[in-house]
Amino acid sequence: VESVDLPITFDLKEKMPVYRQLSQALRDAIRSGRLKAGEHLPSTREMAEMLGIARATVVKSYEQLLSQGYLQATTGAGTFVSRQLPREAAVDESLRAEEQEHRAEHVEQALSSYAQRLMQMPLYESTSDNSADFDFGAPTPELLPARQWRETLNKYYRLQEPQTLEFSGDIFGYRPLREAVASFLARSRSLNCHPDQIVVFFGAQGPVNHIVRLLVEPGDQAVVENPGYVGAREQLLAQGAHLTAVPIDSDGLVVDSLPNAQNRAKLVYVTPSFHDPTGIIMSLKRRKELLAWARRAGAMVVEDAWDSDFRYVNPALPALQGMDDNDCVFYIYSFWKMLYPLSMASFLVIPRSYIPLFARAKLLTERQYPPIDHYALTDFITEGHLERHIKKTRSNYGKQRQALIFALTQRFRKSIIIPKQSAGMHISIRLETPLSDEDVAKCARRAGLPLVSTAEYYVEKPATGEFVIPFTSCDTEALTQRVNRFADGVLLTCG
Amino acid sequence: VESVDLPITFDLKEKMPVYRQLSQALRDAIRSGRLKAGEHLPSTREMAEMLGIARATVVKSYEQLLSQGYLQATTGAGTFVSRQLPREAAVDESLRAEEQEHRAEHVEQALSSYAQRLMQMPLYESTSDNSADFDFGAPTPELLPARQWRETLNKYYRLQEPQTLEFSGDIFGYRPLREAVASFLARSRSLNCHPDQIVVFFGAQGPVNHIVRLLVEPGDQAVVENPGYVGAREQLLAQGAHLTAVPIDSDGLVVDSLPNAQNRAKLVYVTPSFHDPTGIIMSLKRRKELLAWARRAGAMVVEDAWDSDFRYVNPALPALQGMDDNDCVFYIYSFWKMLYPLSMASFLVIPRSYIPLFARAKLLTERQYPPIDHYALTDFITEGHLERHIKKTRSNYGKQRQALIFALTQRFRKSIIIPKQSAGMHISIRLETPLSDEDVAKCARRAGLPLVSTAEYYVEKPATGEFVIPFTSCDTEALTQRVNRFADGVLLTCG
Repeated sequence: VESVDLPITFDLKEKMPVYRQLSQALRDAIRSGRLKAGEHLPSTREMAEMLGIARATVVKSYEQLLSQGYLQATTGAGTFVSRQLPREAAVDESLRAEEQEHRAEHVEQALSSYAQRLMQMPLYESTSDNSADFDFGAPTPELLPARQWRETLNKYYRLQEPQTLEFSGDIFGYRPLREAVASFLARSRSLNCHPDQIVVFFGAQGPVNHIVRLLVEPGDQAVVENPGYVGAREQLLAQGAHLTAVPIDSDGLVVDSLPNAQNRAKLVYVTPSFHDPTGIIMSLKRRKELLAWARRAGAMVVEDAWDSDFRYVNPALPALQGMDDNDCVFYIYSFWKMLYPLSMASFLVIPRSYIPLFARAKLLTERQYPPIDHYALTDFITEGHLERHIKKTRSNYGKQRQALIFALTQRFRKSIIIPKQSAGMHISIRLETPLSDEDVAKCARRAGLPLVSTAEYYVEKPATGEFVIPFTSCDTEALTQRVNRFADGVLLTCG
Repeated sequence: VESVDLPITFDLKEKMPVYRQLSQALRDAIRSGRLKAGEHLPSTREMAEMLGIARATVVKSYEQLLSQGYLQATTGAGTFVSRQLPREAAVDESLRAEEQEHRAEHVEQALSSYAQRLMQMPLYESTSDNSADFDFGAPTPELLPARQWRETLNKYYRLQEPQTLEFSGDIFGYRPLREAVASFLARSRSLNCHPDQIVVFFGAQGPVNHIVRLLVEPGDQAVVENPGYVGAREQLLAQGAHLTAVPIDSDGLVVDSLPNAQNRAKLVYVTPSFHDPTGIIMSLKRRKELLAWARRAGAMVVEDAWDSDFRYVNPALPALQGMDDNDCVFYIYSFWKMLYPLSMASFLVIPRSYIPLFARAKLLTERQYPPIDHYALTDFITEGHLERHIKKTRSNYGKQRQALIFALTQRFRKSIIIPKQSAGMHISIRLETPLSDEDVAKCARRAGLPLVSTAEYYVEKPATGEFVIPFTSCDTEALTQRVNRFADGVLLTCG
């Protein structure tokens, strides 16, 4: 006989006798489903001990419930919850269903307009079949600097050192970390920022989430790339923004297609250093045009540099943030693609004039930072591990990327188009087959090849035959094998 | 001569000669303040090397800027930015001031109504003089289970183990952690919850922030305790809620003072297990009354159990969440007071009917969790370290608390009132002196006694002579000494 963990409270001052209080508690537990049909109850002795009441009281209560049909007793097997609940309970059940419905209605009425939009809009589920198996876009675990990280952390877990005792007072994050990041971003992509402008967030969603909540009012116009990152689009839609979707060509966002100044766009969300899913890098000319447009339109630019560390051919172009002289660019960066799951911190560079606002917002949403994580990240950057790690990882990923492209071209020849762009942790391809996108994905899944359709990247009218293949989770040999298996599968399915 | 780290981009396709492009970039840098008056420039040779252009080009550009007065050259000391900028630059400076003002205006116009409220409302600065020195409310570092934590983490940093490679797909947090927390909460405070209802957040602000954003629409009525936790109040005000402040007596929130059902309060924010700042624990009778009120009013109850692990006399009363049969209680808990800065995770138990909403909201705000932190926390709970740690810490804090109360009573006798409540990591006192609250705080600061006024806990009309003293950051001896020094100081100041 298993014991049942049941929180029961007695009010000894209450006039109801204790045995009836126990009966009622058990009846409630049965009706609400906390005690399930067929579940064994503790013996009267065990129950009395558990609750610190007289055994006779428990016996009296059990007898009452047996007589009412809530409990059943079998000689030798103890007491258990009836499989056939009494009529009263059955009535309760249907009442309960009604109440559930009533509650669902109540929930709907109780929501803020933000929550109502959230419930009504379509959301791309990150846990969909397609991506769940593939650690989509996460760094190759074998390449993670785990030992280095562990050593740095352990240094700080020796809590005798005074700096680890410091209460984290800086609302934007550990100051030396912000200095290290400012200097890294200036060095590696020509940002023009002071550590005061750097805000550290717990996770990757923090920056866009804060920008959108603080800048966008329901009904505001916002511009997104099409195709483009679905997460940013969803944040804007949930906040009630009206979206204008602007296409991408081989130079990046087509600035000529941006709405004109009368449209009063509040912001444009762009990924100039690595466009997802195409991998396209915005040209210098387009960057200048975009900034000129933003100045004319009085719009903010949200420059998301997610996944911008892995370039395989050309050096980095300067970030929009560094080229801007109009104080209008928010720059988003994270080490996610390099360090997840060691650190999940993300960084937002804000225009100077937004510092007071973000200080207030951060106070309400992320008041403290994880100090040891920040100390470790600081050391990791200032001691040069980060840049060494990027270099090493880039070289590995470059080989994996080459192998993937080589294998695909070998097998699909003229049926595949792979853009020349060379950044990121995945490639985008266009595949010409008689198969549906779903069938192609099925073949890939069977072959263990991490391939997903780009459909969800599109605001509307998704392209067909367009896919993304991350190459960081398998080595070159596995990639080649899987591509071959995939190609065999596609041929076989075509018949 | 120091080198200057200056991001300069050349557009070789542009018609402007490279030397003029360089001049313009340097002029812009000087005007915008990135290059400061008196700052040394690299030599023409160094600059040419840095930029990969001909030295003659740099010489030509430097000469132009020297002639225009932006640069100055001293024989032997190289080239530096003029201390007296030319008139054009000076004009730019005043233009810049004007532009700054214009930008501040622009920022104001660009804000969402949430951000506008944020900018206009008074905010309690957590970095104020009073609390910054005292690690207010943080656990005593010497008591932290740092070694245990380090060992658990290290186990998971051996990234060969397959579970650490898992991509964190569960939007509410690592499932075994949620199971461990559900079972811990059921055990220790009679919660009635399924792991499905547990949402893990990065930090302490996550739960209230999400509840408020999802449930409260500007203009909604919300009830808070007075005095009470300022952080929750600020979140509600920023969201545009209208607050009703309800007083506290020795049984907790005065339920009779709650607005009646016609008032349509959306939610009530309460801290029944440990009221901040008084330490009062809500009686069982009041708990029942509050739930009955919530049912009548159709209001949600936000039960914040922050700081509820340190009870020194009575066992825990069951949480409102466990007593509720109306699916209307949100329960907030965190290990912050026990494990900061080892872990900062916080937990929200949501009513079942809110699971779909929170799944959607979490997808937009915290899409992944820090897996290693979650693994370590899970082990920490399931291996019994957490409960052992609570027990050990509680015994230590109990002694510190005793020592503090004893010393204060010894010295202030009839001039001090210390409520009999016995929970938490600080005591609240009422001190009768001829001094102002500021003078009392000054005496405490001089004595090293961590004492703060309760003024900011009040919605309006703060009590005078009411203070909070955390006792976890000094040992018993230090507490006694500091109380004595403090009492001497008070006596001396009274004259």
